[in-house]
Amino acid sequence: MPEKPVAVVLLSGGLDSATTLAAAQKEGFVCHTLSFDYGQRHYHELAASEKISRVLGAADHQVVRLDLRSIGGSALTSDIDVPKEKKEETEAATDIPSTYVPARNTIFLSIALARAEVLGAADIFIGVNAVDYSGYPDCRPEYIRAFEHMANLATKISVQGKQRIRIRAPLLHLSKSEIIKKGAYLKVDFSMTHSCYDPSPEGRPCGRCDSCRLRAKGFKEAGISDPAS
Amino acid sequence: MPEKPVAVVLLSGGLDSATTLAAAQKEGFVCHTLSFDYGQRHYHELAASEKISRVLGAADHQVVRLDLRSIGGSALTSDIDVPKEKKEETEAATDIPSTYVPARNTIFLSIALARAEVLGAADIFIGVNAVDYSGYPDCRPEYIRAFEHMANLATKISVQGKQRIRIRAPLLHLSKSEIIKKGAYLKVDFSMTHSCYDPSPEGRPCGRCDSCRLRAKGFKEAGISDPAS
Repeated sequence: MPEKPVAVVLLSGGLDSATTLAAAQKEGFVCHTLSFDYGQRHYHELAASEKISRVLGAADHQVVRLDLRSIGGSALTSDIDVPKEKKEETEAATDIPSTYVPARNTIFLSIALARAEVLGAADIFIGVNAVDYSGYPDCRPEYIRAFEHMANLATKISVQGKQRIRIRAPLLHLSKSEIIKKGAYLKVDFSMTHSCYDPSPEGRPCGRCDSCRLRAKGFKEAGISDPAS
Repeated sequence: MPEKPVAVVLLSGGLDSATTLAAAQKEGFVCHTLSFDYGQRHYHELAASEKISRVLGAADHQVVRLDLRSIGGSALTSDIDVPKEKKEETEAATDIPSTYVPARNTIFLSIALARAEVLGAADIFIGVNAVDYSGYPDCRPEYIRAFEHMANLATKISVQGKQRIRIRAPLLHLSKSEIIKKGAYLKVDFSMTHSCYDPSPEGRPCGRCDSCRLRAKGFKEAGISDPAS
């Protein structure tokens, strides 16, 4: 029997990355999950990541400490308030919200690339999507393609011609409700997942931030009830 | 008088990055330096970075903690021995040495990109060079170009069309002796710089690792004596 291929899967504790992990497992990869302790407000996502990783049967789960608070610039890692309720009428739809963490996906993918190189993995999975992407520039298909191109020039395994790095974003073109349907089909237990940008100290979702509202809308459109709400 | 442009400069404490900082200062940038505490063996480089930054007049110096030891895979961050003396005859010249840290420049540039975005800086300086580059894939011109392309798709400032990110590698096509001559011309005090991959606990260079030997050869060819040896 041929050896199973190895993948690194970025895990945030949210339903998108949980569904991404389930998709990678379904494809037959031995999955090594990676999460970041980057000084985020929503620290509860780390506990969720660990649980999701274990329940879905990943080979291992690693948490990398990285002090992004010292970089600043985002409502998720600094004292800027997390925006609640609907956007102001004056705010253009193309505006990038204050919850954007500068270069976050680039940093996370870079560290995943290092991990992939150490493991000899050619596939890196990330749960970004470009439909309900909240206006983050690093969730677009052209960004993912550019990172993949760079990754293949950056690393020992690709330069030595052993294998080509692939950045896999299976949710890229799905809406939130389609992601929820896909996750349900893959039997992801959404009660383990955590989406809120600004939960209570006990980890309860606020129900009002962009991420909570997008999640509620997605479940409603999918016709599925959210076990975490 | 127009405002001075702002740059982020990656600083390792070695002579290459010190010369890069001096070059950026000479070009008139307000320089914000960035170093990493990534579990490296050669911890003394952090003290050197702080001093270089201060003496050369950078606007500020930031050290980001990042646990690359948990990723592993390099002699610089794990228990693999740092290679000493000449390479074995059996080792091909194209081999990538064990001191290569997986995806290190990609990780460092990604965090510099986040810092640049927060500061509103368009220029990121890195002291890589492709001549005496020890076979690291992430020191080649095509890699730097690919990172720059990706960076311009990744970030808010570039997507909003405000400015284009530039990855500046002023030493890219210089040999070690040319870098030393350039540094001397820019009045860099090389006694502050630190190159050894495996110094003594007191910070004395071993004189035998790749980096020490490359430095010694560079000073010899430049006809300059090394004040740090």
